[in-house]
Amino acid sequence: MSYPMPDAALGVALIGTGFMGKCHAMAWRNVATVFGGAHPRLELLCDVPDDRARGFAAQFGFARASADWRAAVTDPAVDVVSITTPNGTHRMMAEAALVAGKHVWLEKPMALTLADARSMADLAARHPGQVTILGYNYTRSPAFRQACVLLRAGDLGTPLAFRGDYDEDYSADPELQWTWRLTLREGGLGALSDLGCHLVSQMVALMGPVAEVTAITQIAVPVRPSPDGPKVVENEDSAFALIRFASGAQVSFATSRVARGRKCRLQWEVHCTGGSLVFDQENMNELWVHRSGEAGFTRHLTGPEQPDFAAFCPAPGHNFGFNEQKVIEARDLCSAIAGGPPATPDFAAGLEIERIIHAMAGSQGRPVAIDTGPGA
Amino acid sequence: MSYPMPDAALGVALIGTGFMGKCHAMAWRNVATVFGGAHPRLELLCDVPDDRARGFAAQFGFARASADWRAAVTDPAVDVVSITTPNGTHRMMAEAALVAGKHVWLEKPMALTLADARSMADLAARHPGQVTILGYNYTRSPAFRQACVLLRAGDLGTPLAFRGDYDEDYSADPELQWTWRLTLREGGLGALSDLGCHLVSQMVALMGPVAEVTAITQIAVPVRPSPDGPKVVENEDSAFALIRFASGAQVSFATSRVARGRKCRLQWEVHCTGGSLVFDQENMNELWVHRSGEAGFTRHLTGPEQPDFAAFCPAPGHNFGFNEQKVIEARDLCSAIAGGPPATPDFAAGLEIERIIHAMAGSQGRPVAIDTGPGA
Amino acid sequence: MSYPMPDAALGVALIGTGFMGKCHAMAWRNVATVFGGAHPRLELLCDVPDDRARGFAAQFGFARASADWRAAVTDPAVDVVSITTPNGTHRMMAEAALVAGKHVWLEKPMALTLADARSMADLAARHPGQVTILGYNYTRSPAFRQACVLLRAGDLGTPLAFRGDYDEDYSADPELQWTWRLTLREGGLGALSDLGCHLVSQMVALMGPVAEVTAITQIAVPVRPSPDGPKVVENEDSAFALIRFASGAQVSFATSRVARGRKCRLQWEVHCTGGSLVFDQENMNELWVHRSGEAGFTRHLTGPEQPDFAAFCPAPGHNFGFNEQKVIEARDLCSAIAGGPPATPDFAAGLEIERIIHAMAGSQGRPVAIDTGPGA
Amino acid sequence: MSYPMPDAALGVALIGTGFMGKCHAMAWRNVATVFGGAHPRLELLCDVPDDRARGFAAQFGFARASADWRAAVTDPAVDVVSITTPNGTHRMMAEAALVAGKHVWLEKPMALTLADARSMADLAARHPGQVTILGYNYTRSPAFRQACVLLRAGDLGTPLAFRGDYDEDYSADPELQWTWRLTLREGGLGALSDLGCHLVSQMVALMGPVAEVTAITQIAVPVRPSPDGPKVVENEDSAFALIRFASGAQVSFATSRVARGRKCRLQWEVHCTGGSLVFDQENMNELWVHRSGEAGFTRHLTGPEQPDFAAFCPAPGHNFGFNEQKVIEARDLCSAIAGGPPATPDFAAGLEIERIIHAMAGSQGRPVAIDTGPGA
Repeated sequence: MSYPMPDAALGVALIGTGFMGKCHAMAWRNVATVFGGAHPRLELLCDVPDDRARGFAAQFGFARASADWRAAVTDPAVDVVSITTPNGTHRMMAEAALVAGKHVWLEKPMALTLADARSMADLAARHPGQVTILGYNYTRSPAFRQACVLLRAGDLGTPLAFRGDYDEDYSADPELQWTWRLTLREGGLGALSDLGCHLVSQMVALMGPVAEVTAITQIAVPVRPSPDGPKVVENEDSAFALIRFASGAQVSFATSRVARGRKCRLQWEVHCTGGSLVFDQENMNELWVHRSGEAGFTRHLTGPEQPDFAAFCPAPGHNFGFNEQKVIEARDLCSAIAGGPPATPDFAAGLEIERIIHAMAGSQGRPVAIDTGPGA
Repeated sequence: MSYPMPDAALGVALIGTGFMGKCHAMAWRNVATVFGGAHPRLELLCDVPDDRARGFAAQFGFARASADWRAAVTDPAVDVVSITTPNGTHRMMAEAALVAGKHVWLEKPMALTLADARSMADLAARHPGQVTILGYNYTRSPAFRQACVLLRAGDLGTPLAFRGDYDEDYSADPELQWTWRLTLREGGLGALSDLGCHLVSQMVALMGPVAEVTAITQIAVPVRPSPDGPKVVENEDSAFALIRFASGAQVSFATSRVARGRKCRLQWEVHCTGGSLVFDQENMNELWVHRSGEAGFTRHLTGPEQPDFAAFCPAPGHNFGFNEQKVIEARDLCSAIAGGPPATPDFAAGLEIERIIHAMAGSQGRPVAIDTGPGA
Repeated sequence: MSYPMPDAALGVALIGTGFMGKCHAMAWRNVATVFGGAHPRLELLCDVPDDRARGFAAQFGFARASADWRAAVTDPAVDVVSITTPNGTHRMMAEAALVAGKHVWLEKPMALTLADARSMADLAARHPGQVTILGYNYTRSPAFRQACVLLRAGDLGTPLAFRGDYDEDYSADPELQWTWRLTLREGGLGALSDLGCHLVSQMVALMGPVAEVTAITQIAVPVRPSPDGPKVVENEDSAFALIRFASGAQVSFATSRVARGRKCRLQWEVHCTGGSLVFDQENMNELWVHRSGEAGFTRHLTGPEQPDFAAFCPAPGHNFGFNEQKVIEARDLCSAIAGGPPATPDFAAGLEIERIIHAMAGSQGRPVAIDTGPGA
Repeated sequence: MSYPMPDAALGVALIGTGFMGKCHAMAWRNVATVFGGAHPRLELLCDVPDDRARGFAAQFGFARASADWRAAVTDPAVDVVSITTPNGTHRMMAEAALVAGKHVWLEKPMALTLADARSMADLAARHPGQVTILGYNYTRSPAFRQACVLLRAGDLGTPLAFRGDYDEDYSADPELQWTWRLTLREGGLGALSDLGCHLVSQMVALMGPVAEVTAITQIAVPVRPSPDGPKVVENEDSAFALIRFASGAQVSFATSRVARGRKCRLQWEVHCTGGSLVFDQENMNELWVHRSGEAGFTRHLTGPEQPDFAAFCPAPGHNFGFNEQKVIEARDLCSAIAGGPPATPDFAAGLEIERIIHAMAGSQGRPVAIDTGPGA
């Protein structure tokens, strides 16, 4: 696939300077180094308070700083807004950016509620000339994209089944303090929107549209300490789902933020009529491929035969990194702006992911149809 | 745990000489070598035709042979009957053996239908002096039993979740011929009774009683060639389930006989409040243990600190084998006869496993309660 | 390869009932069960004191017991003597058995000194009608034999290099008591004769004759406690070697009994012009194969396409065990007696292994030629 | 450890735009983003021909371009010169840069010959105010630095042994064309200076000074095709070594560029009196740690508790990448310029590495002492 890059510099504003904020900054600084095209102009960095914004603007190499995120939207030198702030701000910022005519790079999950996500997708649909892209970075890695290529090429036959888990243990300690992130109103969903949506993003890219989900959820630590005494946890620590695909393929799916010992265990396997694929993000440089007739699984170490790897390194087995996924994400965005392949998942595709995780959250053990048709 | 062994030789009859028949024979020949007690007398081997029975009696070291399985039941020199014949014969043979006063070692699955299994469990309950044990060999391995010990000791806290798969690919080739094993009437369930029941046997041993299952099933190859033309496959190639335990723990569960590249992939992980366990039968000599506070998972190679290993080998890391699981199974049976710990799963516990897999087979995506109380 | 088995029962005596004694007993009891032929008669078990001999004779199913090992040699009902006693007794017992006309199954290492091994090989050469075989069980596993088959078939091209280690940690604790095993006079070599000789046995089977070795050795714990105060350790805790093969291939080789965390880490890789093989005994059911043109290494799980596996189990991925290697070893011995393929390593081939490890022990960093020609 | 960063921007020139040239560029663009301090000024990019230099200057974001590498040395706006050109140019460029008063970041290996390396180290010693650093990127990764921390903290006791290999297969195909890189005069050493020196850099960092090496080397493909007919390969395809450390520890060491299936297999293990470490660069985000008393090896996934990781990512298990090692390398250089910890390996330490690989190349199976004392 060919990815044209912009001839003229894109003006960039970045809102937020945490985990993902820094990750976007590193990507903006190197997207043209790696993939060519005009280097973006890093115009404006927004965060609060003001001195934090100024400090990170200097560190990340942005020209200006502001404590008012709206500056990112109104600044005429800005073409693209990177939004990396808490989930509850996503709709407000992304919609303001769209209305102001900006392209939007938004971290996942798309929004707190399905209604918010629908509103955002609707608005994006009314701004077809502006690119939207969501931060589903795990769908960018060379190994994952090779998996997609192998499935689409049909070498492995027809996909029959998917088994996937995304587990971490950041909430496993019952002594961790309660936060607003654990509320439905301010935090939204739990493991499903932190982790599960990533697994959905990979699953859908590999397997196609979902027809039906049945899920159960669990709150493993129902009450947590706070300075005001124990408080109730409202969103799920883990979720388990059965999924039927439109294709007839079937799935077992699980996600947890209380899986002791798991750090970035986004793993899946796909069973096809003519072979299988196995992947685990904790060893993201290995894709395991089995073709019928072979003795077992073959370990494909990441290398230049995989999509996009060669732009980073010509030598196989030289490990690709988590942050470099974001450079590919930035390339996808820039290239879409330059007339290249559509960026994905955009807000429309992101809404499908939200539909699936919200269906899981609400299933309570009953099948829920996922309507993915036009006008759904 | 202490396992007294019989002082006097048990007379043994073996019915069947296939995969499991030979495996029982090897176990009978070495159970006393490994664990002490009187060596069993290998009295009678039954198979058809007659010369096959005679040939294997000589090879396995049995004194006599018969083409009539009923000889095993009526022979007064026989104390225990090993039944390793096709599933459709299990009820008939096991019930005849029980009625004749024999102890019964029966290969899994217990029976073709849940009604058969109920009948067998009822009959066994009326013969409390006779030991029954089912061939759930994967619950015998030192690594698995260490996992049980760790969970029961409470070191890892309370179990929250289980993820399990048992996948093989023996039916993946669509060109494989149709057989009666693929019918509900003669073959019974498909992947669930070949493979899934093994995973259930481990899951229940680790996690306790199941309260509810919701499952979907799939026939990946709906029609297979036969000399009489294409014929329909009636039982499932794969099944996916959500499970709620009485304890509140939750499960994602899957099994498949069409998972390309998988050979004996009986894998699971248990997430507890204070740690996690991970196991894969394809590397059955490794148990992965994580305790909160440790950096990651620690690889426990099978060794003498695990239950029963030292009787086979004093040296850690010297791999335990699949067939040796069956020697422990024979020991469990012999010791129960000698007044040691009850053999498990016996027919009562086996019925619970059947209830679960038949509930999965019939769920069609709806929750099914598993009544495990007395008189269920 | 075809392995005829004896039509008439072989009479067996077993000397020793420790780790290897029990392992031989299990193998004797099942060799015919697995491979056919007449079941051996377990005639005589020798150990000291007398009641230990009697107890293990009962447990292992031997007809008679003796506290005098010479009974094994003089007993006319005995055809084969299994010798599993300490290394210092090997020459005495093996030579007595040969002189008495018995076949000999001797545990490794062959002897304490190279002179002893030479004497034994010379004597065996003068008794060509009697089979000798050494307990190099790791050369018997299906995965290892598949490796040999692959190399000999030439599919992988010409072997260029071998990297091998055999590490355990049974002597790592500096507080372990001094024993006579740590003396040159009574214990002989250290890690080289406990562990290194196993690695040599595999290496030579894979790569052919050694031309030259250069080695250094290390005593990591030079003094150990004893009831009589600290005593000096005389034999090596580890050894490191460079090896040139007659073929021109080159090797790095290491062995240690003080490698913390290693339990049975007999690992190697072979690089050939057209591919590579990788193996690790701690996961003895996996052979990793790479052929040029393939993306990476493919995991071959042990299965019926590997030599001898199908006699134990028809199903791939059902793990083969350490003790089962010994059943194949017994089969090799029995078949050689029955006119089948010569057992190997016999005393002549075992002497080559001894030459190599003694050359390593004496090298002190200087190259030592290994003369493997006739009359060497 | 604290790493102050420059307050004022450093002027940078980069010579070379291949594999390592791009890698340096990415590092220069992000070193301040990740670690703070003033962003470097990317002043000048040198390559031939002129339009290549201009093209990459634009892509990498350098202000100016030149086809004359000497411009990098004479340019008064340049403070640091990154040298990523073929090995035969290293001495010339590095010495010119030092004489001109520049700091030098030089890719490994240091030079073609030991004499060249000595000259360079001598010159650097006469310019103590200028920082030199060599591109031993594998010593920068968080997992490797954690290994160093663990060894220095003494938690694992005293190191006894090291086993290391660095294997790739880029020269395995015998049909690959002959190039000048395969000559001693223009290419210098073979696998030892491409790969082996990296392994030495890690080994010395972990184990301390080398006292003696004994090595053998191999040319697996002695003749290669060229447009002028077959030509002779002069430098080694592989090397095998025994090493004694000043500390008494011992080593087996091997490296190959013809190891089929290996891509970046820089693996080693360290056995200490109280534990062991295991690492493999192909899975560079895993460090395996065993402490005496624990059951086995524990998998440490890369995370924020490891040196420098948190500056890239706050979340454990989110894989660090090969290229990010170079950002740490750039940080080490910048911080040394800013008065932080000395950069290492500098030219003096690099000379030690060259001494060791040249001793290996010349050993021909004889022990060679490595004199590491003052004035050596």
